[in-house]
Amino acid sequence: MSEKASAIAYPIQGLIKYHGLRDERLRLPFHDSISVCTAPIHTHTTVRFGQDGDAARIDGMPVPERDMERIKDVIDPMRAEAGVSSGMRMESRNDFRSNIGLGASASGFAALAVAAAAALGLEISLEEISRFARRGAGSAARAVTGGFSRWYAGTGDLDSISRSIPYPEDLDLAILVALVPAHKFTDAAHKDVLTSPFFKARLEYVPTVLDRMEGAIRSGDVREIGRLAEADTLLLHGITMTGADEMVLWRPETVSVILEVQAMRREGIPCYFSIDTGATVYVNTDRENLPAVRRRVAALGLDTLTCSVGGEARTVPDHLF
Amino acid sequence: MSEKASAIAYPIQGLIKYHGLRDERLRLPFHDSISVCTAPIHTHTTVRFGQDGDAARIDGMPVPERDMERIKDVIDPMRAEAGVSSGMRMESRNDFRSNIGLGASASGFAALAVAAAAALGLEISLEEISRFARRGAGSAARAVTGGFSRWYAGTGDLDSISRSIPYPEDLDLAILVALVPAHKFTDAAHKDVLTSPFFKARLEYVPTVLDRMEGAIRSGDVREIGRLAEADTLLLHGITMTGADEMVLWRPETVSVILEVQAMRREGIPCYFSIDTGATVYVNTDRENLPAVRRRVAALGLDTLTCSVGGEARTVPDHLF
Repeated sequence: MSEKASAIAYPIQGLIKYHGLRDERLRLPFHDSISVCTAPIHTHTTVRFGQDGDAARIDGMPVPERDMERIKDVIDPMRAEAGVSSGMRMESRNDFRSNIGLGASASGFAALAVAAAAALGLEISLEEISRFARRGAGSAARAVTGGFSRWYAGTGDLDSISRSIPYPEDLDLAILVALVPAHKFTDAAHKDVLTSPFFKARLEYVPTVLDRMEGAIRSGDVREIGRLAEADTLLLHGITMTGADEMVLWRPETVSVILEVQAMRREGIPCYFSIDTGATVYVNTDRENLPAVRRRVAALGLDTLTCSVGGEARTVPDHLF
Repeated sequence: MSEKASAIAYPIQGLIKYHGLRDERLRLPFHDSISVCTAPIHTHTTVRFGQDGDAARIDGMPVPERDMERIKDVIDPMRAEAGVSSGMRMESRNDFRSNIGLGASASGFAALAVAAAAALGLEISLEEISRFARRGAGSAARAVTGGFSRWYAGTGDLDSISRSIPYPEDLDLAILVALVPAHKFTDAAHKDVLTSPFFKARLEYVPTVLDRMEGAIRSGDVREIGRLAEADTLLLHGITMTGADEMVLWRPETVSVILEVQAMRREGIPCYFSIDTGATVYVNTDRENLPAVRRRVAALGLDTLTCSVGGEARTVPDHLF
């Protein structure tokens, strides 16, 4: 009945991060956001329609009901567009630990949307697909278009999409991930930030840096990318911890890395921290300084992962079932 | 020529903290602030006028020039008021480690101002003295009037003074201090906060909680005091880290205590963290829960100190020279 299709997608590091939703169901954000995909870690997903009911497994485990709802938020509108009403089987695998501050939901829903589009025979662009992926997780929109991407807040469901930002081929960005395991509460955080006395101030601030970040990406200015992402990180966490729930997402190790990055910079090593809605720290630097940065962060006793810029989500011929 | 006079004063824990100065020379703040003095730790200071030039020693060491300037900011106007022009000798001792997040400059300038007033024969109230102490360190105004005190921003030098807030005799507040050594940059912080995109939002927020905090003190509601101080702490540090200098004042141990306090609260132990412009954490609780809180914080490997509410600065008959 339906073709089996598979896709892979990379998780993302937020650069100008998004926080808070003005429409929770459609996942429409308050402002644009920009991120970079982190390769080689990725999600690999296979889907096939044509069965009774939907069934989904991630890393070999049936997904909990809440996650199934989010999966349906993505595929129901795609099924409607394709005129398909049968159930979907999905198998998905991450080659990295999920729920430790890496963007697993971004890569997961991006891979799902791209695979589903192929399986349903929908001939639509990645920007179109990003619109569907967005409903699973906002960041997934940016993981669909890959590389450096800007998710436009838009005015509604139709124009809240992601577009990739062109960047120089020789852009010299190396990303060291300092893994700090801690349970993530991204969805709760998106609600709670609205209660912070600082939220409005960040809404006013973000538009002033989006174009600066896009400019830094287009011109390949890695230090400026790092500087802007670091400043935005502190604003984001300044809001998270001042909401009604006082969500302090950092762990002691998070602060160790922050202080070490600041120390390295005082010593002349160009590197910048960036933390999404969690405890894990991305350290943005260049390839020349990566070994030194990795040594210093590893010396803090933390597991590290080295990433470079990952491309757009794409179909692959390898199927998981 | 002049009487020798000595005084002691207690450091303070900010409850609704002050941050930023609208007049740096006179140390006039943007808004009122409220703190509690922490006994038994204290500063003991002896002063005598009548010599050539000023000489000051703290904990046996001559003070650096910058500190001498601040001492003169306090005693010059007092000398003028008393019609005295001779030099002052000052000896001061802290019975606690200074510059680790405890309010040593508050207790230091409070003890200085009270001792100097006595040595100069100035018959003025503590509220009047707080006006002079303020010029050394804003928090010193509150350490002069002691107990729980509110420093009124005022409109200028004359009415920017501190007044104590009456509280029930049986107010059940126990303060556990979790010592986290880290160099403090209070003065730099007061300048840098003005550059945070969040600063204006806190200026708008603070007036809404000052009277609530004062009400909680007057009625002896220790949990409400703790709650409000904790919320204000996160706002303060949310601002400090988002200024141009990105001053992350926390250390890994600071976050350990924050998370432990949140965990204890989930378990039903009423306790609240509070952090001034530094890394050391105050944990506000009641006497019944103090032993449990102390055990849990000590288990994190941190030195602790137990404090109760300290009184106003006062002259004492014991002289240091």
